[in-house]
Amino acid sequence: MAIGTSIIVRMALDKACVTFGQVIADVSLAGGDVVAIDVISANKQQMVRDLTIQVNEGDGETVVHALRSREGVRILHVSDRTFLVHLGGKLSIEPKIRIQNREDLSRVYTPGVARVCEAIAADPSKVYALTMKRNTVAIVTDGTAVLGLGNIGPLAALPVMEGKAMLFKQLAGVDAFPICLHTTDVEAIVETIQRIAPTFGGINLEDIAAPQCFEIEQRLRHTLDIPVFHDDQHGTAVVLLAGLLNALAVVQKKMARITVVLVGCGAAGTACAHMLIKAGVGELICVDRGGALVSGETYDTPHWNTLATVTNHRKKRGALSDVIAGADVFIGVSRGGVLTVADIQQMASDPIVFAMANPEPEISPEVAEPHVRILATGRSDYPNQLNNVLCFPGMFRGVLDCRASEINDEMKYAAAVAIAQIVPPDQRHESYIIPSIFNDHVATAVAEAVVGAAVKTGVARRRPRIGG
Amino acid sequence: MAIGTSIIVRMALDKACVTFGQVIADVSLAGGDVVAIDVISANKQQMVRDLTIQVNEGDGETVVHALRSREGVRILHVSDRTFLVHLGGKLSIEPKIRIQNREDLSRVYTPGVARVCEAIAADPSKVYALTMKRNTVAIVTDGTAVLGLGNIGPLAALPVMEGKAMLFKQLAGVDAFPICLHTTDVEAIVETIQRIAPTFGGINLEDIAAPQCFEIEQRLRHTLDIPVFHDDQHGTAVVLLAGLLNALAVVQKKMARITVVLVGCGAAGTACAHMLIKAGVGELICVDRGGALVSGETYDTPHWNTLATVTNHRKKRGALSDVIAGADVFIGVSRGGVLTVADIQQMASDPIVFAMANPEPEISPEVAEPHVRILATGRSDYPNQLNNVLCFPGMFRGVLDCRASEINDEMKYAAAVAIAQIVPPDQRHESYIIPSIFNDHVATAVAEAVVGAAVKTGVARRRPRIGG
Repeated sequence: MAIGTSIIVRMALDKACVTFGQVIADVSLAGGDVVAIDVISANKQQMVRDLTIQVNEGDGETVVHALRSREGVRILHVSDRTFLVHLGGKLSIEPKIRIQNREDLSRVYTPGVARVCEAIAADPSKVYALTMKRNTVAIVTDGTAVLGLGNIGPLAALPVMEGKAMLFKQLAGVDAFPICLHTTDVEAIVETIQRIAPTFGGINLEDIAAPQCFEIEQRLRHTLDIPVFHDDQHGTAVVLLAGLLNALAVVQKKMARITVVLVGCGAAGTACAHMLIKAGVGELICVDRGGALVSGETYDTPHWNTLATVTNHRKKRGALSDVIAGADVFIGVSRGGVLTVADIQQMASDPIVFAMANPEPEISPEVAEPHVRILATGRSDYPNQLNNVLCFPGMFRGVLDCRASEINDEMKYAAAVAIAQIVPPDQRHESYIIPSIFNDHVATAVAEAVVGAAVKTGVARRRPRIGG
Repeated sequence: MAIGTSIIVRMALDKACVTFGQVIADVSLAGGDVVAIDVISANKQQMVRDLTIQVNEGDGETVVHALRSREGVRILHVSDRTFLVHLGGKLSIEPKIRIQNREDLSRVYTPGVARVCEAIAADPSKVYALTMKRNTVAIVTDGTAVLGLGNIGPLAALPVMEGKAMLFKQLAGVDAFPICLHTTDVEAIVETIQRIAPTFGGINLEDIAAPQCFEIEQRLRHTLDIPVFHDDQHGTAVVLLAGLLNALAVVQKKMARITVVLVGCGAAGTACAHMLIKAGVGELICVDRGGALVSGETYDTPHWNTLATVTNHRKKRGALSDVIAGADVFIGVSRGGVLTVADIQQMASDPIVFAMANPEPEISPEVAEPHVRILATGRSDYPNQLNNVLCFPGMFRGVLDCRASEINDEMKYAAAVAIAQIVPPDQRHESYIIPSIFNDHVATAVAEAVVGAAVKTGVARRRPRIGG
């Protein structure tokens, strides 16, 4: 399950000492695969070439070391294609029109802009029509829970936020801007977001550790008049529900009659649990490090107490292997290796396993596959990838279009149903329960569903025309 | 001195009641000028037309009212061309590359981005090479001193900040993003900017009222490792000095031997005073509402006490008209109407008047012109426009290119000299002391001068290659 990347090695070859065939052979032996060759310069004695070499994650150094050891080869430079796309940042802030003369300037800037400012000062709701606020979302992180890397800080989190902003624009036309906060204090984060809110039409919280993320989102939802959405929680929950709706259709089971065991009660797990309850799941058992959460126990983690009271009605106790017998669905948002084949073998017929931990799922797909009816992961290299990218662009497209004041449960549920429905019923099967993240229809369908639910629940401040 | 704008009026004309000639005549009588006509639809009874009408600021309503009063004319819609360019905002956040397949996605986002994050976590200085920080500036305002409009708040300030961001990009390739703060508290503003700093390579403070702007800038300069620049102060001072250097060359006076009277000791005036002292001005007298500032007096406004100690060595007292006798230069950064012809007549020979108040200068240019040798204003409709646009794009281009840790006096002085030198000595004369804001060479010249001064004063953390 190694991740592929490629490196570009510029080398000078001494023709008297080494042949190009030997170089290619060295690369192969070291685990690389030459995919492109460019001649940079050549004379009688030496040749300078760029080799683009496909390698597995971590093998790049072995390949370069092998080349350095070969007599007659001098390595001039090694570039890494992943690093190359990040050089200088991945976003550009562009004016929508070019200022070509004084008249243009006097319209977009002083003195003409003064009348636009006065119009907004007189009627603040005009800020949506007359400024970027209408289409701009802040992607806010404190860098405490970035990917699987943990607390790497705001600077190191920035490349992820930029990548997310790219997806916002490409998939849904949303202008998203990364705000990486130099603080991990709940009070400071809440205050800061409240203060910078005027520029934005929505706030996407990202990669903020639990339990801080819960309080931050709650407080912002109550004090801001623009939608606040912690993607790690709700994006994951929306996509999970979308996949589960289709998986249940395939195995012909009803949501109200299934038992789900969910492992991992952090930010994502907690949101998934609440979403499943909202969707009317029959029974839900949440499991974390100490085993199944049971009502009546007192937990150090405050939100576990809340979770325990609304789940596990039969008060099953014990570790995952003690509570999984008879379960219809396993959902993992925890870490690699927590689920075994023996566990799956205790499940009800047609077991559904969503092993969403990244990068290593709760059980290796190769190991699980023979024993399950339906398998989904967070990974792109297996069928049924449950990826938040299916939700957040369309979700914010929708809330911006209708100027929603918040994102409520009905809107999230509507988004999940919209994602599920992209898969045509006649094509739905074990390895096609969720659309591809490159499916062009997803963002539009999610946006329309979100607008519909926002209008219905009275949080839309504008009814957009069809098509934006 | 009215400012021109244009409106587009869509109207249905009842052919039986009104002729098009009558409509045109109505527009003219009401003070408008029809500059374009578009036929939208026409049938036997009625014709729908769009009229683009040039009007003076404020006359639009009179024209529309006149048209509404004409029988047979029905106004369907009135658009204002200034408002039209602001609709939906003026900035777009664009990905630099398009994600076309899974391999692209895995490089710019998960899982590939994890290695980029780890590289920055291991060596935070890499954030400049690998993220948008390298080229991104925050334009931060609290909306308390916007243009001449005063405290209109953060939402109403946003159109100005967007316009400024457009200029940053168009003139110097800088990615600038508006941050409009929902607080006017010094402590809160300082904290907020410190917390959002990781995304940015520089902070441009904008339209923040004095005296708060002084403390905010000072505290940020001492705590952040990226440059902080309050444009209303230092941008104005740099451009003023640039103009003054050339004006003195024209009248063949030396900086060290002139007397300058400066009226208006707010944010801009204070910075101009310090810049003139740095430039070695012979004598400087600062005047505000209470008259000339004199060392030894105690003022309620703290920065006036500082100003008084470093200016007015001969301790002249009284109002502007009491202290202007014999002055070589008048500088106004106050409000319309404070300077009279009688004042100018008291000045030394070859009087230089910089009447920079906006939109109404300290003296009407038509009134002043016969009595001065050199006149400059902040306006675009007279020669010698002193406009901050000449400074801020190149200033930030320079500090980003050399990763300066701050903007010091030497860098500001170098920027002023660079702007002045754009005017070739053989072309320099009374009505050409400052380059046009559309002169393509300004930003590059300022950037290079700023880099040079940053390197010389030891605040550059990188020596850029020529050409970026």
